[in-house]
Amino acid sequence: MRGAVLYGPHDIRFVERENPRIIEPTDALIRISATCVCGSDLWPYRGIEPINEPRPMGHEYCGIVEEVGSAVRNIKPGQFVVGSFFASDNTCAICQAGYQSRCVHKEPIGAGGAQAPLLRVPLADGTLVATPDIPSDDLIPSLLAASDVLGTGWFGADAAAVGSGKTVAVVGDGAVGLLAVLAAKQLGAERIIAMSRHESRQKLAREFGATNIVTERGDEGVARIKELTDGLGAHSVIEAVGTQESMMQAIRSTRSGGHVGYVGVAHGVELPGEELFFAEVHLHGGPAPVRRFLPELVDLIWNRKINPGKVFDLTLPLDQVAEGYRAMDERRAIKALLRP
Amino acid sequence: MRGAVLYGPHDIRFVERENPRIIEPTDALIRISATCVCGSDLWPYRGIEPINEPRPMGHEYCGIVEEVGSAVRNIKPGQFVVGSFFASDNTCAICQAGYQSRCVHKEPIGAGGAQAPLLRVPLADGTLVATPDIPSDDLIPSLLAASDVLGTGWFGADAAAVGSGKTVAVVGDGAVGLLAVLAAKQLGAERIIAMSRHESRQKLAREFGATNIVTERGDEGVARIKELTDGLGAHSVIEAVGTQESMMQAIRSTRSGGHVGYVGVAHGVELPGEELFFAEVHLHGGPAPVRRFLPELVDLIWNRKINPGKVFDLTLPLDQVAEGYRAMDERRAIKALLRP
Repeated sequence: MRGAVLYGPHDIRFVERENPRIIEPTDALIRISATCVCGSDLWPYRGIEPINEPRPMGHEYCGIVEEVGSAVRNIKPGQFVVGSFFASDNTCAICQAGYQSRCVHKEPIGAGGAQAPLLRVPLADGTLVATPDIPSDDLIPSLLAASDVLGTGWFGADAAAVGSGKTVAVVGDGAVGLLAVLAAKQLGAERIIAMSRHESRQKLAREFGATNIVTERGDEGVARIKELTDGLGAHSVIEAVGTQESMMQAIRSTRSGGHVGYVGVAHGVELPGEELFFAEVHLHGGPAPVRRFLPELVDLIWNRKINPGKVFDLTLPLDQVAEGYRAMDERRAIKALLRP
Repeated sequence: MRGAVLYGPHDIRFVERENPRIIEPTDALIRISATCVCGSDLWPYRGIEPINEPRPMGHEYCGIVEEVGSAVRNIKPGQFVVGSFFASDNTCAICQAGYQSRCVHKEPIGAGGAQAPLLRVPLADGTLVATPDIPSDDLIPSLLAASDVLGTGWFGADAAAVGSGKTVAVVGDGAVGLLAVLAAKQLGAERIIAMSRHESRQKLAREFGATNIVTERGDEGVARIKELTDGLGAHSVIEAVGTQESMMQAIRSTRSGGHVGYVGVAHGVELPGEELFFAEVHLHGGPAPVRRFLPELVDLIWNRKINPGKVFDLTLPLDQVAEGYRAMDERRAIKALLRP
């Protein structure tokens, strides 16, 4: 088969790779219906995260089960499944507490490279969630979104303790930030402030439930949030970027006693202890335990209560994966969906 | 009157000061029954926190109301009261959410200097909690402890989401750490691991409810906690020191999805964003909103359910305040109680 491999900064190629196969008896082999480019793929693509050897790319996926290992009990060939970017057993104490992304047996899906027609998924029973039936084609983008960006935005909102009556601010207008807006709306937030300076993203944020848009960033952005919240800051702030500026913007936009949920993969972030101490906010985040939320998210999508697939504003055949990266890198696209 | 004033590193003097008086109509004037030296007083005493001019010291207090301002409604002269180290209105949105230490009208008690026979307490109705009657003398140390160290340890346990069935670790064996052990016990923890290498403190920790003692620190301390928790880390870790080492020890001792409650005033702490991201713990802490817990704590003490006053292992007349600082600085005493 041919799949996407990153050779170095800005050098992504669609090249011949060995077909994945069942290795462990707990594996499943998936024929990918759709995959996509993640904001976090851009870190190594841009050379900010170094790579030492050619790396198969992609960790977001949905598709049809082609084959399962001998120990797989619940997942069957022919089922349509969605999984997260970490394989997890879903039975260990950490999984049971809802942190499947830190499962004691976790394996990154990224190692297999989901930007390809076939994918090996370890720990299939713990990792994959089957839809009630084979979905109609228009549901595919939303089900694919559940695999990472929706689940990650949802975790951000959950980590930020979003709930009814609360004012929520979202730092970052990428796919995760936009879907954090959708999650906040679903979780009952009263006001949702999207921080964005891009018109197309502001529009989608409003469609997903944003009640206010703040275009300012950094200290000015914080000041605007304070203005909108009687000088106190938001109850819940979701950080969906991962830089020093965005983390500090999130912390400073949160009222004392409030919650910051951070899901942007941290790069070069150092949090000043004294400021954090006197800010007296709750901080929680990390790689989203998407598996915790998947059954609920699949259900919401299946019943057409939410349409997170709208974040895909570019669809390409998989062999044009390089254009998908370029479009996202240059912010011409929010998120690129790839069809094998 | 005479009170404690810090002139410079290790230079604390008991000197003549102007008597405090009612300034705002919401003030109360308290005749101090007991006060004490706080671990956080040692930061400026040791010169780690610079002081630019002579500073009246002390922010822990209980005593008899001598006089109240014209706008004080609930607190009456003659009542025995306990208050926290921040005066708070207890009515603003931040107070109502339980964060009185970040009240929009907060005023530090420290500015008045509680290591003296008389203290002005601003926002008396919001700040002070009266006991049902004048307490017997043996209750005074415990009621004084409620003013800060007990309330702070309790907040640490609350911030670390201590609850039934959980394994809790406490980093720091000062008065706050020891009372965090007591709080964890009261809040239903199954196992409480006190990290301490001092025999007298270990003994008190066990008396307060510690089930295990870990004497190792830093990476070795973390390894011991992991050994005791199936390699996962504790559910809840309370940080009661405030240094880089203790914060990292706390974060690394916590399982993914678990909670760190930090109450040691941070000095020179920088949290690495990447490690924090992948640790996936909850972080919460800051200046304890003691006022939130005071009614419950006073009740537990009044009914002799807890005896936090045991942390005072040195009692001195107030005019020997300098010896109190020395004894705590040299770790000859856990905490020094001062009687005017």
